[in-house]
Amino acid sequence: MKITIIGAGSPYTPELVQKLAEEQGAMPVGELCLMDIDEKRLEIMHGFCRRYGKRLGLRAEITATTDRERALDGADFVNTQIRVGGNKARARDERIAISLGLVGQETTGAGGFMKGMRTIPVMLGIAHEMERRCPDAWMINYTNPTGLVTEAVNKYSKAKMVGLCSGGFHARWVTSKALGVEAGRVRYDLFGLNHLSFAHNITVDGRSLTDEEFEKVAEAAGSPGKDIVMMIRAVPIGYLDWYFHTEKKMAELKAAPLTRGEQVLALEDELYAAFADPACDSRPAVLDKRGGGGYADVAISAMKAIWLDEETWLPANVPNRGTVPFLPDDAVIETMCWADAGGFRPVAVPGKPPHLESVRGLVCAVKNYEQLAVEAAVTGNREKALLALMAHPLVGDYDVAKEVLGKMGGIVCLPC
Amino acid sequence: MKITIIGAGSPYTPELVQKLAEEQGAMPVGELCLMDIDEKRLEIMHGFCRRYGKRLGLRAEITATTDRERALDGADFVNTQIRVGGNKARARDERIAISLGLVGQETTGAGGFMKGMRTIPVMLGIAHEMERRCPDAWMINYTNPTGLVTEAVNKYSKAKMVGLCSGGFHARWVTSKALGVEAGRVRYDLFGLNHLSFAHNITVDGRSLTDEEFEKVAEAAGSPGKDIVMMIRAVPIGYLDWYFHTEKKMAELKAAPLTRGEQVLALEDELYAAFADPACDSRPAVLDKRGGGGYADVAISAMKAIWLDEETWLPANVPNRGTVPFLPDDAVIETMCWADAGGFRPVAVPGKPPHLESVRGLVCAVKNYEQLAVEAAVTGNREKALLALMAHPLVGDYDVAKEVLGKMGGIVCLPC
Amino acid sequence: MKITIIGAGSPYTPELVQKLAEEQGAMPVGELCLMDIDEKRLEIMHGFCRRYGKRLGLRAEITATTDRERALDGADFVNTQIRVGGNKARARDERIAISLGLVGQETTGAGGFMKGMRTIPVMLGIAHEMERRCPDAWMINYTNPTGLVTEAVNKYSKAKMVGLCSGGFHARWVTSKALGVEAGRVRYDLFGLNHLSFAHNITVDGRSLTDEEFEKVAEAAGSPGKDIVMMIRAVPIGYLDWYFHTEKKMAELKAAPLTRGEQVLALEDELYAAFADPACDSRPAVLDKRGGGGYADVAISAMKAIWLDEETWLPANVPNRGTVPFLPDDAVIETMCWADAGGFRPVAVPGKPPHLESVRGLVCAVKNYEQLAVEAAVTGNREKALLALMAHPLVGDYDVAKEVLGKMGGIVCLPC
Amino acid sequence: MKITIIGAGSPYTPELVQKLAEEQGAMPVGELCLMDIDEKRLEIMHGFCRRYGKRLGLRAEITATTDRERALDGADFVNTQIRVGGNKARARDERIAISLGLVGQETTGAGGFMKGMRTIPVMLGIAHEMERRCPDAWMINYTNPTGLVTEAVNKYSKAKMVGLCSGGFHARWVTSKALGVEAGRVRYDLFGLNHLSFAHNITVDGRSLTDEEFEKVAEAAGSPGKDIVMMIRAVPIGYLDWYFHTEKKMAELKAAPLTRGEQVLALEDELYAAFADPACDSRPAVLDKRGGGGYADVAISAMKAIWLDEETWLPANVPNRGTVPFLPDDAVIETMCWADAGGFRPVAVPGKPPHLESVRGLVCAVKNYEQLAVEAAVTGNREKALLALMAHPLVGDYDVAKEVLGKMGGIVCLPC
Repeated sequence: MKITIIGAGSPYTPELVQKLAEEQGAMPVGELCLMDIDEKRLEIMHGFCRRYGKRLGLRAEITATTDRERALDGADFVNTQIRVGGNKARARDERIAISLGLVGQETTGAGGFMKGMRTIPVMLGIAHEMERRCPDAWMINYTNPTGLVTEAVNKYSKAKMVGLCSGGFHARWVTSKALGVEAGRVRYDLFGLNHLSFAHNITVDGRSLTDEEFEKVAEAAGSPGKDIVMMIRAVPIGYLDWYFHTEKKMAELKAAPLTRGEQVLALEDELYAAFADPACDSRPAVLDKRGGGGYADVAISAMKAIWLDEETWLPANVPNRGTVPFLPDDAVIETMCWADAGGFRPVAVPGKPPHLESVRGLVCAVKNYEQLAVEAAVTGNREKALLALMAHPLVGDYDVAKEVLGKMGGIVCLPC
Repeated sequence: MKITIIGAGSPYTPELVQKLAEEQGAMPVGELCLMDIDEKRLEIMHGFCRRYGKRLGLRAEITATTDRERALDGADFVNTQIRVGGNKARARDERIAISLGLVGQETTGAGGFMKGMRTIPVMLGIAHEMERRCPDAWMINYTNPTGLVTEAVNKYSKAKMVGLCSGGFHARWVTSKALGVEAGRVRYDLFGLNHLSFAHNITVDGRSLTDEEFEKVAEAAGSPGKDIVMMIRAVPIGYLDWYFHTEKKMAELKAAPLTRGEQVLALEDELYAAFADPACDSRPAVLDKRGGGGYADVAISAMKAIWLDEETWLPANVPNRGTVPFLPDDAVIETMCWADAGGFRPVAVPGKPPHLESVRGLVCAVKNYEQLAVEAAVTGNREKALLALMAHPLVGDYDVAKEVLGKMGGIVCLPC
Repeated sequence: MKITIIGAGSPYTPELVQKLAEEQGAMPVGELCLMDIDEKRLEIMHGFCRRYGKRLGLRAEITATTDRERALDGADFVNTQIRVGGNKARARDERIAISLGLVGQETTGAGGFMKGMRTIPVMLGIAHEMERRCPDAWMINYTNPTGLVTEAVNKYSKAKMVGLCSGGFHARWVTSKALGVEAGRVRYDLFGLNHLSFAHNITVDGRSLTDEEFEKVAEAAGSPGKDIVMMIRAVPIGYLDWYFHTEKKMAELKAAPLTRGEQVLALEDELYAAFADPACDSRPAVLDKRGGGGYADVAISAMKAIWLDEETWLPANVPNRGTVPFLPDDAVIETMCWADAGGFRPVAVPGKPPHLESVRGLVCAVKNYEQLAVEAAVTGNREKALLALMAHPLVGDYDVAKEVLGKMGGIVCLPC
Repeated sequence: MKITIIGAGSPYTPELVQKLAEEQGAMPVGELCLMDIDEKRLEIMHGFCRRYGKRLGLRAEITATTDRERALDGADFVNTQIRVGGNKARARDERIAISLGLVGQETTGAGGFMKGMRTIPVMLGIAHEMERRCPDAWMINYTNPTGLVTEAVNKYSKAKMVGLCSGGFHARWVTSKALGVEAGRVRYDLFGLNHLSFAHNITVDGRSLTDEEFEKVAEAAGSPGKDIVMMIRAVPIGYLDWYFHTEKKMAELKAAPLTRGEQVLALEDELYAAFADPACDSRPAVLDKRGGGGYADVAISAMKAIWLDEETWLPANVPNRGTVPFLPDDAVIETMCWADAGGFRPVAVPGKPPHLESVRGLVCAVKNYEQLAVEAAVTGNREKALLALMAHPLVGDYDVAKEVLGKMGGIVCLPC
């Protein structure tokens, strides 16, 4: 079995090495192929991963290449974790957005839009290459903005693909912690979109939570605050703050000396120096400062489900096709899925969640934005891009939307 | 035939008198009953309407009463044009909203919300009275916020009711003027909600507009500007500015010395003095300063369609029931209707308008707000009210929503 | 204005001449072009129509041609009333069906299937010719089986087209007669498919029928009998007998010495002899023996609605596009429409008719057959044809379906 | 843990005893309570099951009672396998149907209808008793007609309930045999209703079948024959013969000296004599002659999924709620489910199966019948019963439907 990582120079790579080592009894890997266009980072990460893998007893051969075609040849899984333009571009997105009074964040709002416009064409290039070189392989994506990228690849390519995000398990961790039960005993339905999903019908061992238990969960849920969690009787992931605490969050963004992208950028030298140290064969401490990641768990679950035909319940981003009746069939949604060798299928939700009626409009609006943004990225059409931003609940204003487009300097559009 | 006007002290009453006079050949009225709770204004308007009607040759007997039960007894049509709390309350709504950086407007945003909370219980009271006193009568409503009021009455009462708004003909007037064709030759489909509707598939004599013609229409459309009209290839009514030119409109609101409500309030003394003048038997000049109104045309069309079983094409607010597949069945929408003695039925739109995909999310979001707001008004539930404001694209923020509720001083909830 | 009749040699042509004469004040016709591939019948009918038109004072020039291209050039309306293979083929269909114990009828069951397979390719040929020669013209179709033909042309051609059938007014006539009210005062909603439609929510002057009135209507409705009409609280057209009185109707078919096609065939010589008589300038008596027709009323209504942009309520076969939510969007349904210069739009039905729940399955099954049959006709695919017959509630059996295909001697498939 | 079997006098009971013994390591049972209203059979089966259980090492206490209330008290699972009226009533249904030229079969057609009318009120009685005595217990139903019974209980009771049928695994066994692969490696989607379901998208180890493989499967599928299986590219269960080979099957029914019910009835004395033999502690040979059963596998899977919160993929009958968009939300469908302690949720089907378009109408028609039949059973309304039979593709004819009702001697209706 060959696993390829595209964008392997990223500091997210080691956690995948670690998980592959842990799971190699059940799922032995022949080759782990690291691919990146940044030669220097690739070399550093290749060296580190070999040392790290060796220490962990990983038996897979770890290879490295800057040649995407070679990396994809014969792959069984293609993990995509790219960042087009690097953290420099991300920081620029954030600054443009903030300067216009908008949310500067890499998955949501104007920031996410700019990242999406830059990323979708590259992701489609990878997907089309997969169609030719490894048509049976699965693309396991955690490149952001996951909702946009997953919808674009599913619509405009025949590559098999699933969009993963650790956020789908947020409610599991919260509930586990709040009630002191093992995470695996917690299940729920998931409604919404990537970074805008809501866990409801939460159960422990199949039993619904009592009101007292739910209150504890609401307290533990953190953002967007216990009050809102109680009102919607669902646990959203933290990104909801951008919509329901826009003023506070914008104030924080404006007050912060560095954006999140700038923080990460500032750590990069230190981070890669640590990885490059020939003596370093375990997770360097600086990685904790950086944060992020956490995808390896869900990525390994997905790969095991497919490779071993192991029936698995997990959150994923997949085409709607009737799961949420008021969203278009071709809209990618985030939902609990049943995964096995045959792929990912939404687990249907019995009955409509009445409390989630109150976020129905928000979900529709954000999905409308996402679909328009995908069209803009694929066609390079400036009007579509404007309409996308105007459809976004965190932009809306026509003049502001035009300024975003002006400052980002045009939509790049690769043929797809 | 008996026509009752609830809220007849309003300066909108004379235009109905005028239209009834014009149409009395086709539709003779026996009694025109003016009802208001403001005795003084009712007396003034009663006097004026009798003089005005006499001058116009209206043969109907014009009566007046402050007794709602007597006014409704035996009515065939009940025109509702109330303003709960008067323009004083409206001005207060506007000021509260503006002070919180929100849209202060009587149909949209926080302003519309506050008016809705105050108005819905009273409208339901009238509707329930109609069930008892004139169960076969039609309520012809142009009380704002029409979307909320129409949905509330349709859901929570058995009274026959339709919500009218002159805005549904906006695209007809614009096209007529832009192309120099008679308004009656212009038709189109209408998609959306009250004050958020979009005229598309515009035809003249059944022929679709050419690109050149549409460009002329776009130029004449005024707000939200030719660019946007061209992009969505539809003519929206002016209220779209609140969503797509939020910043400009908010700046205007803040800069204006008087809000719209305050302007109207300031004219009231002068206006009623003019009406009270025993010599005055025609439209006083001060009415032009006041503006508003324009409902009489569409109201008369609706009453003629019903009373004469005259097949009529007209815009109306009616329950969705599948017309717009991604909105709930019980959502009230604004759409072109076929009206006759049997009531109002949406004219189905052949095929989906592709350009309107770009406002799908906005329409869903506003309708979500409207449905939550109706629930809040009917149940008096504060959580529903909060969720409604959080669902509104022009509010959203939880803390701001709480401030709106705090300042408006509680939701009034009458049993219904 | 030029009206072309394709299949003008048919005895249905004179009633159109008569109606055009009656309506020429409102809608004057410049040229009435008769087209047929049967030279002899065309000549006879041309002669008769000129005499008949003259007597009636019709000012249109009546021309004749066997050249389809010339007939379509510059046409404004194209009335299609063809019978591919003539009544000989129809009689053969009927006999094949009856010999296999099946319904032999030209619109329903195996008989309708065979006619459809033969007719659809020719109708598509006409439609494609229209795209080239008169792209703005409307095809007014009453060629049977109307459901199949209308769906095929709407799906596989860009020609403007509507499928008409006098059956949609059946409930109007029945109600008018039963209650002694003028037909124009009766209205209703129409649910279903061509020759399988159900009139419900019947009103007189917009007022719903009382139980007593409905009982009278049920009594007058004829087939399928008062009991069934009462149970479904809707007035179906007579063809429902084929489904709910299959045994009786099959017994009648088997007992009859001549099928309907054979009867008509036997009258043809006498009929054309009458038309050919140079002294004959009015409807010959033998036409009453023949029966059929009755389309002219609805055809003229449709043409007037379009030509004069005259708002008209009339039954028509049009694409579903959400009108009946459980049928596919591209399924052609029979429904009440609002017609004007812009075309035909379904009048939406407020709320679901509970009594019609009991025929929902039947309507779905027949539409399923129709969609498969259209595919079979367009592709010439034998499997689709088999599946179509197996999907038909009046066939179903696989072996019987194969026998039908065997005996009909292959599906003709013209490129389209 | 307490498992109750209602209708435990049935010869289906021993296979459950056997499975419980096999699985008691994972799922130990405290009490297995046998309940029946037939004292004699209950005593015989109680004796046999105790001997049989002892031989198999089953540690559960096996109790017996004719008191339904006591049987349900404290139960965790309630297996319902009743036959109201016994095989005598079944044989009578069959004979009535055959005498009218109709399908006489206990789940489909007129036979299934009569059984359903008799069974639904009793099943609702059990369900309502469960609401009071064991509200957290799951009813595991394999009482026929499963589609009707499951829909009735789901609609009219709050008891937790799932309808199981071994037929949902038919395609797994067929594929396993045809391709020589282990059954557990075969998966698929399931579309349709109980005894009218279609397995499509068949995979082995997650890989789709090749055309050659599918042809082998089609050959092995048996009824309704390779040709049909190839055309619809799906494996239906054998009951499809009643619809697609109606003539052959009716001929068989008429030619057979004994109906299936009569055959089983004839064996009953011999069968119970064997069970009653105090020396008998293993499956008596006469049981093979009887046939039927096979439910224990799927019943145990379902109980383990719930009890152990073990994620399980299995076919089940559950409310539709959007899974099949063209069927009503409250329609019970047969579909692959994800089962765990939280219950049964449909696994959504990615994309619409194009080949199954050809049975869409049939499925709609049968479900329409089922929904009307449930209403008839619950209300005792004769019109609903007539409409149900008229909606059934294997009845349809109104006069025949009336004869069925006449001969069955009235609908029994218990209050529910």
